Amino acid sequence: MTRFALTVEFDGRPFMGWQRQKHGPSVQAALEAAVLKMTGETASVQAAGRTDAGVHGMAMRAHVDIAKPLAAFRLMEGLNALVKPAPVSVLACEVVDDDWHARFSCVGRSYEYRIVNRRSPLTFEAGLAWQVPQLLDAGAMAEAAGALVGRHDFTTFRSAHCQADSPVRTLDRLEVVREGERLFVYAAARSFLHHQVRSMVGCLALVGMGRWAVGDVAAALEAKDRAMLGLNAPPDGLFFVSAVYP
Amino acid sequence: MTRFALTVEFDGRPFMGWQRQKHGPSVQAALEAAVLKMTGETASVQAAGRTDAGVHGMAMRAHVDIAKPLAAFRLMEGLNALVKPAPVSVLACEVVDDDWHARFSCVGRSYEYRIVNRRSPLTFEAGLAWQVPQLLDAGAMAEAAGALVGRHDFTTFRSAHCQADSPVRTLDRLEVVREGERLFVYAAARSFLHHQVRSMVGCLALVGMGRWAVGDVAAALEAKDRAMLGLNAPPDGLFFVSAVYP
Repeated sequence: MTRFALTVEFDGRPFMGWQRQKHGPSVQAALEAAVLKMTGETASVQAAGRTDAGVHGMAMRAHVDIAKPLAAFRLMEGLNALVKPAPVSVLACEVVDDDWHARFSCVGRSYEYRIVNRRSPLTFEAGLAWQVPQLLDAGAMAEAAGALVGRHDFTTFRSAHCQADSPVRTLDRLEVVREGERLFVYAAARSFLHHQVRSMVGCLALVGMGRWAVGDVAAALEAKDRAMLGLNAPPDGLFFVSAVYP
Repeated sequence: MTRFALTVEFDGRPFMGWQRQKHGPSVQAALEAAVLKMTGETASVQAAGRTDAGVHGMAMRAHVDIAKPLAAFRLMEGLNALVKPAPVSVLACEVVDDDWHARFSCVGRSYEYRIVNRRSPLTFEAGLAWQVPQLLDAGAMAEAAGALVGRHDFTTFRSAHCQADSPVRTLDRLEVVREGERLFVYAAARSFLHHQVRSMVGCLALVGMGRWAVGDVAAALEAKDRAMLGLNAPPDGLFFVSAVYP
């Protein structure tokens, strides 16, 4: 068996998420079907993180074990040919040690959330950004984001379906940048809770709209209570950007 | 009659181009159908420029004459509601003088061409960029682009179907910028010939691949011969960015 590390880009719109699901298409199932076609092997493709339905990947990392002798470049080319027409693309492929694990070896994950702040509907970005019609105050959002950076109990920003043992996470970065009518929220941490990025972005947007004061985000965090969550941002604007390994 | 100026974004993928066509959907027809639904009037929506099938618009300018009394904001909101599900969005709408003409009053047009320079297929950018697998030398492309800037006879870079009286145009800007695996080509002129941007980008790409020398672009221009065109870039990566008025 050889273990291959994959770097995968995907358009999340047609998928129920990364993880294989009984009730709909997934990125994992699309890649595993391509591996089966290419090698005849039923392999499991493990990723650095699960993503929700509709969330996109710029450079998700994953690994797969294959018995058939194959060069990494051939595997990449074969998967890209056979995964079509699913909007999944293997950007890189390399042989790694057997103890390298896309999820358990990962020591850092980063996300980007895209907001288009305008009244008019989206066209070529439909499903690839969150359209917010109310004018957002990016400065206030950036200020409120500061309260979330660091080591905290993120219970307020955690889905009821989150399976993590602890709600404590260390958020290394949460930045809000406006470029014209676009806002980008950049988030980085060793790991995130289920829905954490979307929940943080949703509350920051409430601050941007003026429906929440800057201090309300810190208060929601301190409450450690999911009922205090103001808004969960839609999956459309969320991109898994990168995974970091030692 | 009141003349309204529109600023229109559109995803060119499902359209035969801006202009109304007998054999398929167009941005113009989608907007005219929305005007008809809203006002009961059969109006013509005139744009600053025609675009080819598959070419996108970030801020195309257009005008339409409407008899029914309507506030500009109401017209914008109504068109955006009624043009659905076509991927067309009116970003702005204002009342203009009767002699303001989206095409004839326009004194400047700019385009952006997007290239993703990598071997792996596109996912969320499919149809929104030109994927070029060979490594492109952006520096050589930028140098070659310099030969095209200024007032020239662009016969080499003009479609056989071009209806312009003269092949002479003044190209004000042609810049090539690399950002990671992405290349952007920015073009600006008072007006362009049919296929001019795509033809220029195609030849610059040949330089980037090393199949053409830098000087071959200047030689192709000087030849004033369509047969000297190296390559017409696909419509996917082309965006009409803006139109300038006095």
